[in-house]
Amino acid sequence: MCGIVGIVGKSDVNLQLYDALTLLQHRGQDAAGIVTCDGDRLCQQKANGLVRDVFRARHMQRLTGNFGIGHVRYPTAGSSGPALAQPFYVNSPYGIAMGHNGNLTNMREVVEEIFQQDLRHINTDSDSEVLLNVFAHELHKLGKLQPNAGDIFTAMKAVHKRVRGGYACVALIVGYGIVAFRDPHGIRPLVYGKRETDKGTEYMVASESVALDVLGYTLVRDVAPGEAIYIELDGTVHAEQCAENPSLNPCIFEHVYFARPDSIMDGVSVHKARLRQGEHLAEKILRERPDHDIDVVIPIPDSARIAGQTVAHNLGVKFREGMVKNRYIGRTFIMPGQKQRKKSVRQKLNPITLEFRGKNVLLVDDSIVRGTTCKQIIQMAREAGAAKVYFATAAPAVKYPNVYGIDMPSASELVAHDRTTEEICKEIGADWLIYQDLADLVVSSAEGNSEIEQFDCSVFDGNYITGDVDEEYLEQLHAERNDAAKNSNGSHSSL
Amino acid sequence: MCGIVGIVGKSDVNLQLYDALTLLQHRGQDAAGIVTCDGDRLCQQKANGLVRDVFRARHMQRLTGNFGIGHVRYPTAGSSGPALAQPFYVNSPYGIAMGHNGNLTNMREVVEEIFQQDLRHINTDSDSEVLLNVFAHELHKLGKLQPNAGDIFTAMKAVHKRVRGGYACVALIVGYGIVAFRDPHGIRPLVYGKRETDKGTEYMVASESVALDVLGYTLVRDVAPGEAIYIELDGTVHAEQCAENPSLNPCIFEHVYFARPDSIMDGVSVHKARLRQGEHLAEKILRERPDHDIDVVIPIPDSARIAGQTVAHNLGVKFREGMVKNRYIGRTFIMPGQKQRKKSVRQKLNPITLEFRGKNVLLVDDSIVRGTTCKQIIQMAREAGAAKVYFATAAPAVKYPNVYGIDMPSASELVAHDRTTEEICKEIGADWLIYQDLADLVVSSAEGNSEIEQFDCSVFDGNYITGDVDEEYLEQLHAERNDAAKNSNGSHSSL
Amino acid sequence: MCGIVGIVGKSDVNLQLYDALTLLQHRGQDAAGIVTCDGDRLCQQKANGLVRDVFRARHMQRLTGNFGIGHVRYPTAGSSGPALAQPFYVNSPYGIAMGHNGNLTNMREVVEEIFQQDLRHINTDSDSEVLLNVFAHELHKLGKLQPNAGDIFTAMKAVHKRVRGGYACVALIVGYGIVAFRDPHGIRPLVYGKRETDKGTEYMVASESVALDVLGYTLVRDVAPGEAIYIELDGTVHAEQCAENPSLNPCIFEHVYFARPDSIMDGVSVHKARLRQGEHLAEKILRERPDHDIDVVIPIPDSARIAGQTVAHNLGVKFREGMVKNRYIGRTFIMPGQKQRKKSVRQKLNPITLEFRGKNVLLVDDSIVRGTTCKQIIQMAREAGAAKVYFATAAPAVKYPNVYGIDMPSASELVAHDRTTEEICKEIGADWLIYQDLADLVVSSAEGNSEIEQFDCSVFDGNYITGDVDEEYLEQLHAERNDAAKNSNGSHSSL
Amino acid sequence: MCGIVGIVGKSDVNLQLYDALTLLQHRGQDAAGIVTCDGDRLCQQKANGLVRDVFRARHMQRLTGNFGIGHVRYPTAGSSGPALAQPFYVNSPYGIAMGHNGNLTNMREVVEEIFQQDLRHINTDSDSEVLLNVFAHELHKLGKLQPNAGDIFTAMKAVHKRVRGGYACVALIVGYGIVAFRDPHGIRPLVYGKRETDKGTEYMVASESVALDVLGYTLVRDVAPGEAIYIELDGTVHAEQCAENPSLNPCIFEHVYFARPDSIMDGVSVHKARLRQGEHLAEKILRERPDHDIDVVIPIPDSARIAGQTVAHNLGVKFREGMVKNRYIGRTFIMPGQKQRKKSVRQKLNPITLEFRGKNVLLVDDSIVRGTTCKQIIQMAREAGAAKVYFATAAPAVKYPNVYGIDMPSASELVAHDRTTEEICKEIGADWLIYQDLADLVVSSAEGNSEIEQFDCSVFDGNYITGDVDEEYLEQLHAERNDAAKNSNGSHSSL
Repeated sequence: MCGIVGIVGKSDVNLQLYDALTLLQHRGQDAAGIVTCDGDRLCQQKANGLVRDVFRARHMQRLTGNFGIGHVRYPTAGSSGPALAQPFYVNSPYGIAMGHNGNLTNMREVVEEIFQQDLRHINTDSDSEVLLNVFAHELHKLGKLQPNAGDIFTAMKAVHKRVRGGYACVALIVGYGIVAFRDPHGIRPLVYGKRETDKGTEYMVASESVALDVLGYTLVRDVAPGEAIYIELDGTVHAEQCAENPSLNPCIFEHVYFARPDSIMDGVSVHKARLRQGEHLAEKILRERPDHDIDVVIPIPDSARIAGQTVAHNLGVKFREGMVKNRYIGRTFIMPGQKQRKKSVRQKLNPITLEFRGKNVLLVDDSIVRGTTCKQIIQMAREAGAAKVYFATAAPAVKYPNVYGIDMPSASELVAHDRTTEEICKEIGADWLIYQDLADLVVSSAEGNSEIEQFDCSVFDGNYITGDVDEEYLEQLHAERNDAAKNSNGSHSSL
Repeated sequence: MCGIVGIVGKSDVNLQLYDALTLLQHRGQDAAGIVTCDGDRLCQQKANGLVRDVFRARHMQRLTGNFGIGHVRYPTAGSSGPALAQPFYVNSPYGIAMGHNGNLTNMREVVEEIFQQDLRHINTDSDSEVLLNVFAHELHKLGKLQPNAGDIFTAMKAVHKRVRGGYACVALIVGYGIVAFRDPHGIRPLVYGKRETDKGTEYMVASESVALDVLGYTLVRDVAPGEAIYIELDGTVHAEQCAENPSLNPCIFEHVYFARPDSIMDGVSVHKARLRQGEHLAEKILRERPDHDIDVVIPIPDSARIAGQTVAHNLGVKFREGMVKNRYIGRTFIMPGQKQRKKSVRQKLNPITLEFRGKNVLLVDDSIVRGTTCKQIIQMAREAGAAKVYFATAAPAVKYPNVYGIDMPSASELVAHDRTTEEICKEIGADWLIYQDLADLVVSSAEGNSEIEQFDCSVFDGNYITGDVDEEYLEQLHAERNDAAKNSNGSHSSL
Repeated sequence: MCGIVGIVGKSDVNLQLYDALTLLQHRGQDAAGIVTCDGDRLCQQKANGLVRDVFRARHMQRLTGNFGIGHVRYPTAGSSGPALAQPFYVNSPYGIAMGHNGNLTNMREVVEEIFQQDLRHINTDSDSEVLLNVFAHELHKLGKLQPNAGDIFTAMKAVHKRVRGGYACVALIVGYGIVAFRDPHGIRPLVYGKRETDKGTEYMVASESVALDVLGYTLVRDVAPGEAIYIELDGTVHAEQCAENPSLNPCIFEHVYFARPDSIMDGVSVHKARLRQGEHLAEKILRERPDHDIDVVIPIPDSARIAGQTVAHNLGVKFREGMVKNRYIGRTFIMPGQKQRKKSVRQKLNPITLEFRGKNVLLVDDSIVRGTTCKQIIQMAREAGAAKVYFATAAPAVKYPNVYGIDMPSASELVAHDRTTEEICKEIGADWLIYQDLADLVVSSAEGNSEIEQFDCSVFDGNYITGDVDEEYLEQLHAERNDAAKNSNGSHSSL
Repeated sequence: MCGIVGIVGKSDVNLQLYDALTLLQHRGQDAAGIVTCDGDRLCQQKANGLVRDVFRARHMQRLTGNFGIGHVRYPTAGSSGPALAQPFYVNSPYGIAMGHNGNLTNMREVVEEIFQQDLRHINTDSDSEVLLNVFAHELHKLGKLQPNAGDIFTAMKAVHKRVRGGYACVALIVGYGIVAFRDPHGIRPLVYGKRETDKGTEYMVASESVALDVLGYTLVRDVAPGEAIYIELDGTVHAEQCAENPSLNPCIFEHVYFARPDSIMDGVSVHKARLRQGEHLAEKILRERPDHDIDVVIPIPDSARIAGQTVAHNLGVKFREGMVKNRYIGRTFIMPGQKQRKKSVRQKLNPITLEFRGKNVLLVDDSIVRGTTCKQIIQMAREAGAAKVYFATAAPAVKYPNVYGIDMPSASELVAHDRTTEEICKEIGADWLIYQDLADLVVSSAEGNSEIEQFDCSVFDGNYITGDVDEEYLEQLHAERNDAAKNSNGSHSSL
């Protein structure tokens, strides 16, 4: 997962981009970058690390110009090399920089193609570099000295024909403006907004509406699936549908875990969706065991807190913040002559024993992936004296890998893969395991926007909306992840 | 406020100290330091910054030895120079390092005295350096080549006679062991615990019990007011009351704001105390307005969340996490030709508009100090569409400065100083302001340990438990803070 | 001035490139960079600073691959921005990286042209980025999926037709090999050599032969003016003359000042040339004043030492190292409330008073540029007690700016511009000033290689060999230098 | 070897101390430190690295005050830990900081004593920390609240009675002034000087006179052996002989290798001494082989250049700078799967082949220690085509370790230990080896100051002037050096 932002302003946009990236930092803490454009020159700073560490005063002073883009990166297989921070840049045509959130599922073919057709060299394993080059190539083919909105949309249409997967992007074209676009299924989120200033209207595109809110922008709307929005330097906004059969199928995992609760995505308030997830989960619990003996509901902080509150409220059971999250996590040092110490879950969460002792506890988390953390948490609850430990998740069982930009393990590493709920319950050591039903999860989100007919729920149901993900692709993905793990020193660099 | 830890272990203690400091990091994010002792040599690393930034693998490799101490610092007037990280060290006698949490109220006299009696030079404005030198001087006076527990307690008794204020300390004596002590009123917290290993029993002293819990230590008990505990290298534990009229008067502000909820301090569960604070606050609200029209209770995260939950529950009103805290705060850059932008509260908190629009909202915070943040929050709630904005705090009005180690502004900067509740309510722009009654706050804590007859509540009632704080002292403190603010480049260094 | 190197080896070339750059560091201490190619991936590290500071172990570990190029940069107007370290890179076609030593005199036209013909964006003021893009464009035009030597030479020929100036370059083409070329006048130096290893023959191109020597390579020959050499990955070497009317006119200032004495350039031993410069200078001194009263010859270290020795020997006068160079120069700090202290020449040079007191001293330097340093040195000699201070330079008067890659001030800042020798002598405060005659300087070099009919002596005679440098160009250059000085924060970045 | 400086000025001395340290940097490139005193506060910055890297603008801004001291460190056994940079500091009595050049030969006994008498803990293996504590202890014993010059000299006398070895020191006493002293034999150099300013007279003490010269101070005189000079804050200078039987026996190796040629030490011009060394060496060569066949004299740069010039001149043979020193030496990287590459001498020196080919070459160096470098240089000369390679050194054979502060290997590692000149000649592969006679070396120096009756020549003749160095001590030193080499991670820190 990554976060992107683009601004066309009326004065230097560096500080705005910086603040926007801190607001999107939850989408990626691995690397950060900003590119601005001042006259016919690009200014750039990007590096591994948090936003507050990557940008120093001296960098900000260089990042001049009234329009620019920014990116925060989540480490995913193939993208975590130390120099793979985005935005990426190509100098032909015009000078284009791009930031990308998502994943292409047909990257291999495209890399080959792009080299043979245009002799373009791709220097990294990043599909973002590929996407930038496809866009650049399609724009270059038109051969315009001064591209207009029509040219950009023409190129965009060609891009959607060539690449598949989930992608939300912002691109900066030197001297012209900013292009924002979203894949034909709208899998990854993207919104745009505007604000009035003394000097005129400024525009921002961003992964989440929270960046608009805090910086004083008003949400105009979500970028539509397949749509491209081109904002010229002078503030003229062009929008055009560039995909042939667009349909809105946003990733439902954003609502479960990734997005900030104060964001509104495709019309759905994430906060409200989570409240509803808790309500539906409570219903299921009551359906399964109308006469349950739960004494207290304890959420796993921070993501499960909201759903946990409605679970407790609807069950009529006490809600207690019985697990405290350690906000300051240290490094893991390997001392000479010692085995690597795995930082245990205990160093991330500490139970308030008084809330566990002798009680039947219902722990609520957002989801279960590998099951290892969950197992340790349950063990910790028992050690704190819980009589019984029940476990409920706001999401259904995660059974399939994600191929649209969320870094999730291969199927074989998922505890729910090829296991029944009973088997999983046993594996994680719970006394009772309650998964949200998929239909309920979908309803929790859909209630926010009735126009969404289908969400991307692939990690739960294995139904990959782009239609091109087969067993072979998943196996290849699995192999690459293993290779990446083995060669994690990340030798190749973005240039 | 600061955090301290000391460990006498059976193998290298560097990793334990490091982890303990991350668990105490909420008590101070300004600087961190560790000193260990290996044979007759001290090993040290300290610097400004968070624990995770101050200690690198190369430092950890040098920090060898089976006993050591650590410190995290909160920036207070006179202590925030770049080189004032603790522990401090003197080489005579024996080699002693010390970490200190608190503040001395008679530092000026003591500095003078210590120079004249022992020619000891104090190089900083830090009272911690003074305290270390008083202890060192008293120990040196005994002239023992090999000090025993009795000698240490003799020195300790002399220390309590010479210094006044709030102080919880750990000192490391090269070649001998660790001394932990607390001022005669027990204003600042200190606990100790032990754990069994294959090689024998290990001991830890720490500001808060959470450090014991997470590292697998069992809480033995709090260090008593005026008590000193001396743990020899071999694990022998000596304890002795070293003050003449000790009485337990812990700082109640720890329970309101500073401490982690999962800590137990002087027998009081902070978590429980906060739940009770909410209950009492709800009672007061109902007392004041039995027929209130509150639609929703919204806490100011993170510290007011627990009290907020019981407020809502006891009022029978909906509880909503309607303010979202931005976890990633960026730097403040000053660009050429721009005025310094003050990071607004908006960059720290973002309202979920849906929870405010058209509603009568009760915001719950832990306390109000200057009132400026609070004012902005209320404004933000109005802009989010709240019909009415009520404000309640888990603590009473803060009217007096703190002189025992909490960095709080001078009286004149406190919004509640010389103002009635009505005046404050108007100043912060609320429609209704409810302060916890001091008696209720005390009860909320005292219920956890009936043996505490009096808390240090000086910031609320101006009653300074050490008896030596007069108007003159407070004026001098005010002047020093102003001076410190003017000379904030922190020129003098710890050596 | 800059230094370049390229190696096609049989195993990782990172360490060789690193060592070669340290040997070329005298040609540029401002920035350094290495690009290697491993399979189809480029690996890169470049930054401002000395070679020993730019490359750390972690960078070297990433710089894998059997061929690569390196660059050290001298700060020149327009190239000293913090992110302008070379090599530069374009990804289309093939992925090409380039390092450049020299300066283009028709850059402005070419930038315009390259954008209009190929839509290629140039993001910096660096002519090196322009040269790379011209080469890339010409190669791209051929449209070959697999370029052969003929294609590369075809592109090269087109490059020479489009650009003018002094340039010696190494380019790396991903997956194919290394191209080295020199402008049609051979103004800037470039040699190539080879060495045998167990795994086969390795090839190196470098600015100076000293890099070949120290790394165990045998000099094959200089790259000829206008010639391109293409070394394929497998070690196959292709060479072709790509210019229409090549002629060898190397920059004579390399022999005076820039080059290491142990280098051999275009067949001329720099060491020998400097010895001859001293001999001719002695002759002129004797011609001017057969009965001179010089007591001692003292060279200005380090560059004038060799010529000074032959001057003294041929005059039959004592030679003394009476000026000691401070090897460790500190930073210049600006303290609050102080005026900026200019580091005086005194902090770079210290006279041994005993060698000056009461004597008629002949100081020998390589050349005089602005005259300010020279003036201070003469003053220093007088303060050390010299009876008379004579000053001689191994080069003639520097009267014109350099446009082929040496950072020299504009004409108006040159002390010799529009001044007679007598006027200069007075200006610098000498009792006698002896400039080498240009004919003698040329003979000193030409004696090493009789095939060189004409050197580039433009800084002495204003005769710019490329034929396109007119008053307008020089004025524009002057203006740019002034602008660059004003905007020295170097805002635009290489991407 | 180390360099020290102290200044009592009339305004901030930080910049002067900084510049002085860069001028003394040749005496130690391993670490650097400055301590200044502003009112009753010490300000300090010290770290490993060159002066230009250790001090940044932010450090300089903190280093306020009108008096201070500085130190540059050469890495010697026991002193090279990363945190052992000097000056050292103790806070009792008064606050004293000290910088030390030299080595104590009875450190072990003194450490023990100082702990037992005063309970002072020594935390490092550095004899400098010991010396500081002895001085502090002796001063403390006097128990004066305000020490006067007499007290300081009393303490100083006690110091000389307790410690033995070579030591030149500057100490800063907070609030009082600076003390400079030299051991009773004056083994290590120390000078002092003054300069007039508008605000009054400023004083500087420094290891070498070059620091005085460049900063505009006039040399007053050398500090005498056993003498202490105390400069009060107000500029009052006190001097007193504090040793019982002082005699001037300066280390002759300073004149051979360490000192800058432009320094004058104990009345001897180092430059002149080196000229004379060459003259005497030429005489010996002519004595040994009146009809030698030497074609050219080539010095090993930089230290042998001056002597080489007079050797050549007096032999009537050509002098050529045929070995070029590489000024920029890179790091040594250890790549995975590679053996550590030893940077060969070739990377430090490069021969100009033309000066060697077919000739009988006399190489002149300052001295031969292990013989390994020398062997490689001779081999390099042969590969460059020399017909015969003769080798002469300005110093006699180095046969004994140094115990007075020069880091030289143990006897067994010295090529001249237990070998005849013929055997050494064979070992290093020369065709002829000429060592300076010790008597001639002494004369070369003594001619500069006839009052010096005996130099410390211990590395040549094994005569240790302090009289306490026996076989046992040397064996212990050898063992410690081996231990230090094994534990080179330098775990213990200065505090």
